Amino acid sequence: MRLSRFHLRTTKETPADAELVSHRLMLRAGMIRKLASGLYTWSPLGLRVLRKVEAIVREEMDRAGAVEMQMPTIQPRELWQESGRWEKFGDQLLKIKDRKEAEYCYSPTAEEAVTDFARQELSSYKQLPVNFYQIQTKFRDEIRPRFGVMRAREFLMKDAYSFHITNEDLVREYRNMHAAYSRVFSRLGLDFRAVQADSGAIGGDASQEFHVLADSGEDAIAFSTGSDYAANVETAQAAAPGPRPAAGEDMRKVATPTQKTCEEVAALLGIALQRTVKSVALMTDDGFVLALVRGDHMVNEIKLAKVPGLADYRLASEAEIAEYLGSEPGFLGPLNAIKPIRVVADRDVAAMADFVVGANERGFHIAGVNWARDLPEPDRVADIRNVVEGERAQDGGQIRIVRGIEVGHVFQLGRKYSESMQFTVLDENGKAAVPAMGCYGIGISRIVAAAIEQNHDDNGIIWPEPMAPWTVAICTINPKGDAAVNDAAQQLFDELQAAGIDAVMDDRGLRPGPMFADIELIGIPHRIVVSERGLAAGAFEYRARRAENAENLSREQLLARLAG
Amino acid sequence: MRLSRFHLRTTKETPADAELVSHRLMLRAGMIRKLASGLYTWSPLGLRVLRKVEAIVREEMDRAGAVEMQMPTIQPRELWQESGRWEKFGDQLLKIKDRKEAEYCYSPTAEEAVTDFARQELSSYKQLPVNFYQIQTKFRDEIRPRFGVMRAREFLMKDAYSFHITNEDLVREYRNMHAAYSRVFSRLGLDFRAVQADSGAIGGDASQEFHVLADSGEDAIAFSTGSDYAANVETAQAAAPGPRPAAGEDMRKVATPTQKTCEEVAALLGIALQRTVKSVALMTDDGFVLALVRGDHMVNEIKLAKVPGLADYRLASEAEIAEYLGSEPGFLGPLNAIKPIRVVADRDVAAMADFVVGANERGFHIAGVNWARDLPEPDRVADIRNVVEGERAQDGGQIRIVRGIEVGHVFQLGRKYSESMQFTVLDENGKAAVPAMGCYGIGISRIVAAAIEQNHDDNGIIWPEPMAPWTVAICTINPKGDAAVNDAAQQLFDELQAAGIDAVMDDRGLRPGPMFADIELIGIPHRIVVSERGLAAGAFEYRARRAENAENLSREQLLARLAG
Repeated sequence: MRLSRFHLRTTKETPADAELVSHRLMLRAGMIRKLASGLYTWSPLGLRVLRKVEAIVREEMDRAGAVEMQMPTIQPRELWQESGRWEKFGDQLLKIKDRKEAEYCYSPTAEEAVTDFARQELSSYKQLPVNFYQIQTKFRDEIRPRFGVMRAREFLMKDAYSFHITNEDLVREYRNMHAAYSRVFSRLGLDFRAVQADSGAIGGDASQEFHVLADSGEDAIAFSTGSDYAANVETAQAAAPGPRPAAGEDMRKVATPTQKTCEEVAALLGIALQRTVKSVALMTDDGFVLALVRGDHMVNEIKLAKVPGLADYRLASEAEIAEYLGSEPGFLGPLNAIKPIRVVADRDVAAMADFVVGANERGFHIAGVNWARDLPEPDRVADIRNVVEGERAQDGGQIRIVRGIEVGHVFQLGRKYSESMQFTVLDENGKAAVPAMGCYGIGISRIVAAAIEQNHDDNGIIWPEPMAPWTVAICTINPKGDAAVNDAAQQLFDELQAAGIDAVMDDRGLRPGPMFADIELIGIPHRIVVSERGLAAGAFEYRARRAENAENLSREQLLARLAG
Repeated sequence: MRLSRFHLRTTKETPADAELVSHRLMLRAGMIRKLASGLYTWSPLGLRVLRKVEAIVREEMDRAGAVEMQMPTIQPRELWQESGRWEKFGDQLLKIKDRKEAEYCYSPTAEEAVTDFARQELSSYKQLPVNFYQIQTKFRDEIRPRFGVMRAREFLMKDAYSFHITNEDLVREYRNMHAAYSRVFSRLGLDFRAVQADSGAIGGDASQEFHVLADSGEDAIAFSTGSDYAANVETAQAAAPGPRPAAGEDMRKVATPTQKTCEEVAALLGIALQRTVKSVALMTDDGFVLALVRGDHMVNEIKLAKVPGLADYRLASEAEIAEYLGSEPGFLGPLNAIKPIRVVADRDVAAMADFVVGANERGFHIAGVNWARDLPEPDRVADIRNVVEGERAQDGGQIRIVRGIEVGHVFQLGRKYSESMQFTVLDENGKAAVPAMGCYGIGISRIVAAAIEQNHDDNGIIWPEPMAPWTVAICTINPKGDAAVNDAAQQLFDELQAAGIDAVMDDRGLRPGPMFADIELIGIPHRIVVSERGLAAGAFEYRARRAENAENLSREQLLARLAG
């Protein structure tokens, strides 16, 4: 490809509403242009990247045994009513009336359409398992479209749906898709994590998200340095603590006249924050509960709600606190309650000795507290806190917390759609069986933006090679005036092409400064300069996109470097 | 590919509303399934064909220098109002309101969106010419969707739009696209014609349609056996006739008491129909006109309206005929008018001698009529008739009339959109210039149906090789019970793959009858049978889809045949 025959238009300015670096860089590189709110045209440059991502996704889906098909973007209301989602999906569902006033939606996802296809196509267990996928435009009517293609309304998605006779077979395919997704993101050259999104529904981890790691990511992810374990911070499990030390101090009441937070109390007493205990007052249908976490930890509301008896918990009011503990917030603790309470302790708290709690008396805390000696063992011990950066993970590694952008999702759906849409096949015994389903999505257009969030510098995008619009740029100096430069560039281009390297020749005739700035901005991994001076010296100037400096290489060195 | 790992589901029955053979065969082969009126899911089998067509279109567009990009399917009302098409497009335009009550449409074509993109991207003549194309889903809200994907509401289209400083450059690109389209349809292996759709607007033939020829086609097309000339029957030009023979008969009045049509008069007189002349009475703002065509010809209304003075013509009433000719229909002619009339003669009529016309008197015609001798030369001579099958064409060939399905269109748009949307670039002199535009469409999904209309028999589809889901089917007899058969089939499959031949192995374990029926129905061009008996004899049974009988070939013969 010669850039003079392509269409490239870079710009310096970006609109004020482009908050994310990927949005700004995609606009500056001319990869996308806005047509309307949340609607983007992909320029020739942008589409090259999108298609490279699409091709890798397709190859790995095919390799994993899924079969590609394609469903309409416009889908009838009746189908969405069968599943109940016509009403439940909410305002993100773009509803449409045709000339005959029949109602449709623009597909934001296609469980209904694929189940309808499946019930027309599949009638026997012999046809199962099968995994249908499509790479198709989707629409979600976001209330606040922003961040460019990161949260556009119209976007490109790969969605796959598998059908199984048994739950075990669904779990097998779920793992197969998990492996395929890992290959996709590895091949794309992205730093990613598969993150536990939920648990338990059907088989093991019934739902996992794939995140591209980037500081600008919307989600906080905890992962361990010791294994593949990763989870949203909200669901990440803390490691079990070691055994409880023996009591070493006497229990004593200490005056904390204005010290209400654990930090203030620890500072006053001159002890580590880790020796204090935070008390959170809750009400449930079964009465008052005091949840205890270490002073340096945060209560995790999702974990709390999973503790038996706390499913319906809410925070206690000041009146309720006064009624049960006879105290006011800031001085609460498990000792000296005036009415019966239950105590739920985080596992770390249950393993503490000689700790500090509120005295249930304004202006006082109690130090040197020990379980069993000074108060009964907790009514229940559970993991009820957020994990923190640097702590020991269950697998012996360390917990790291990073931010991620969700680009994929694998999900054991079960029989929600097949049941509501009355899809059955005959099983081995000739009886009607409702197939189990899995669904597996990848946000193709979103990957493009996420990759930029992860890979850029002040000069522009730094594409991982498999996603780059071209792997190599051959920059020609004065190509119109200098036939030797043009010939040498063409020869090099032909050699690269013969070696299967996707190169572009910048023959636009720009001066070196603007030309190099363009090539850096659009993120080409390798830059070669062909100039009169270089040819005279028998050298090509080469620079990797991430390298500090250029170097002069002979043709052989250059080809060896690029082939490597 | 092994069919056991694919998803294939053929059926015997088709719905009553499937009128076209392509619709029936696509349903029977399981290529498509209906989701709703005019909305079809492409099964894995159907999508393979669609993607093969798409790939060939993309390759030829790229080769022709067009650059691919992609516009949203959902486009804002404001843009369509700029061109005036929001109101003018009619009910085929699917209009949509989003959650904020803003109005959009589902793109049926993208002149507005591409012009908006161009005016953001292009500012100088140096960036022109450029030809942007996309392969993207379109929607037209047909009032009566039918014929399967032939006239679906949602369909796949390749649409291209070029921009030029001069009309000459537009004409150059128009010809370039015309050539690219010819390559596309040739490579697809289809019998097609480029048909003149209109003429004159900007450069030469300003608009041409590409038709796949098939008996079921909606349009009648006239083409010449002597050149590339082809046109819709309504616009096809008749060849100029030879010189007028000398008069040989005396003029005489003949009694035709009940004979009103040329056929009846010719039969009564015992002469060839070609010696009679049909008179058609017209009124215009400038008075009465008698249009004359030969008795065996049909007046062409479109050509008639192009004759100077006839732009506003209508058929004359019986009262007007009585007023000007003093006669009643069935006996009209150019002689003996009672008020002044103009005579417009088809070129063939002007070249006749000794012909028969109505006498303008009930029950009589006049025979042996000759121009100049018996009546003045016609006021105007023009081509005002439909061409007919078998006549001599302008280029010396013969006219053939066939039916066609429109699958492509190239069009010199001119400045309609760039002007209404105020798109200018700076020309060489630094002045604002409004670029000329061309647009070029190919109906990708429609091509699939059109190819079937052209290529099928009682047993099913007969794919041209470049469009076939697979080129070769290897049918294995008892593959589960016979390891030798399975191994031999796998080895053959590997050899074909190594030779770049797209093969599928039918390892579903069906009995030969149903298996062969499936393979014929889905139209695979080459079928090979691997069986125990064949292996014992050292032969493979081979049959081309169009062949009457199978033949036994050795491995070497088989590979040579398929490579040929």
